[in-house]
Amino acid sequence: MQRYFVKPNQIEGQSIIIRDDDAHHIIRVMRMKEDEQVIVSDNETRTVIAKIVELGSHEVKLEVVEESVKSTEPIWQVSIAQALPKGDKMELIVQKCTEVGAVAFIPFESQRVIVQYDHKKEAKRIERWQKIVKEAAEQSHRNKIATVESTKSFKQLLEGFKLYDLVLFCYEETGKGKEGQALKDVLQTFKQEIEDQSSPVRILVIAGSEGGFTEQEATLAKDAGAKLVGLGKRILRAETAGIVALTCIMYESGEMGGV
Amino acid sequence: MQRYFVKPNQIEGQSIIIRDDDAHHIIRVMRMKEDEQVIVSDNETRTVIAKIVELGSHEVKLEVVEESVKSTEPIWQVSIAQALPKGDKMELIVQKCTEVGAVAFIPFESQRVIVQYDHKKEAKRIERWQKIVKEAAEQSHRNKIATVESTKSFKQLLEGFKLYDLVLFCYEETGKGKEGQALKDVLQTFKQEIEDQSSPVRILVIAGSEGGFTEQEATLAKDAGAKLVGLGKRILRAETAGIVALTCIMYESGEMGGV
Repeated sequence: MQRYFVKPNQIEGQSIIIRDDDAHHIIRVMRMKEDEQVIVSDNETRTVIAKIVELGSHEVKLEVVEESVKSTEPIWQVSIAQALPKGDKMELIVQKCTEVGAVAFIPFESQRVIVQYDHKKEAKRIERWQKIVKEAAEQSHRNKIATVESTKSFKQLLEGFKLYDLVLFCYEETGKGKEGQALKDVLQTFKQEIEDQSSPVRILVIAGSEGGFTEQEATLAKDAGAKLVGLGKRILRAETAGIVALTCIMYESGEMGGV
Repeated sequence: MQRYFVKPNQIEGQSIIIRDDDAHHIIRVMRMKEDEQVIVSDNETRTVIAKIVELGSHEVKLEVVEESVKSTEPIWQVSIAQALPKGDKMELIVQKCTEVGAVAFIPFESQRVIVQYDHKKEAKRIERWQKIVKEAAEQSHRNKIATVESTKSFKQLLEGFKLYDLVLFCYEETGKGKEGQALKDVLQTFKQEIEDQSSPVRILVIAGSEGGFTEQEATLAKDAGAKLVGLGKRILRAETAGIVALTCIMYESGEMGGV
């Protein structure tokens, strides 16, 4: 069933109104008719099945037919901090990581970021990434839309570590035998440590841009509490590391069965 | 260190000749000088460190300085069978799965494949995907280039199951509570079963196109010996399922540490 996100004020009791892009999608792309059903989520507490009762030219009215659709949100809440990559690679990262289950994206600047970052375009860029995240959330049947934060400096990123139970710093050099641990070792130990934790488990994954991280950055991250982790012997591109680390975390946390 | 693949006849004793695109890459893109070193692999048994002894205008002569570079090939050999997706998504799939560690790609046709498959362009398409795989193998420091097979029918795909120790059929419906098992359950059981196996472990991952698979195809695959597996509660796009399944297999097999 098709899934749409609306603002809380678009759901009033049993009535829902869908407007703008999503209305266009229902009317023109999906060509739905009255009485057809979709899933609607307010991106907070309420996700319902609703049927179409009126198709306007620019908006669609619906009526709730079933409350409380089963949540598809992951057990562990993983945020992806990504050093700005070249070209449109960030778009691929936010789309794929939304499908796999990330709850937040934090773009940041690091020493080896190659792109000339234009601060004037910040708002536009975030808006574009947020739109891709929303569409990916609808398509992959998420109950919540991941957030895209504004671009941070490396220092600001470090200051945020305290919000997480675990910070994983993906460090290429670890695979080459330098300092750090393999990802699975870190995750298995962590899983035992948080066994009795009642509050939501929060993890931050930090992935580098094309040039990776400097030794200085790795040291700063480690001193601030991050675990330096390697993702195996093969070298992953900037846009691949985050998706791979996130997938492994989802797998270890039991999102794909197992113990 | 930059890595290049050559044909076995381009290495003779201690002398290596690099031609064509790779020579162009060394001379024009990397702008290397004499005495600089690269890794050269013959894609079979030999991977060496070699130094540049002569830069021509279209070819580069090198000399072996160190034999037997450590292998980066994965322990389990995973092939990806991918029902033809739309647009250029297959390019993303072969690139990303090469980085993560796939050894072969098998494009195939299934009932819900949307693209009109032009058989006249078969050779061109395979050549293009093979080129992307080679570049990704060089970039990610693989010792071997994954193979891209010619496009198979669904029947031909089924007939090939006997070549593998495990066949995983990624089936969206499994996530919705229908028949099938979660990926981690299947992999953990399999790992115990093959503990004493001395021959290489061979796994086939089968991923669908945009429309997924029909129930009939799932039944045929199951009857031919495949395990129907789900990749969690969220719905992955056609180009994402293979990468995610492959990553989980690599993780479970110990490529990222752990037991």
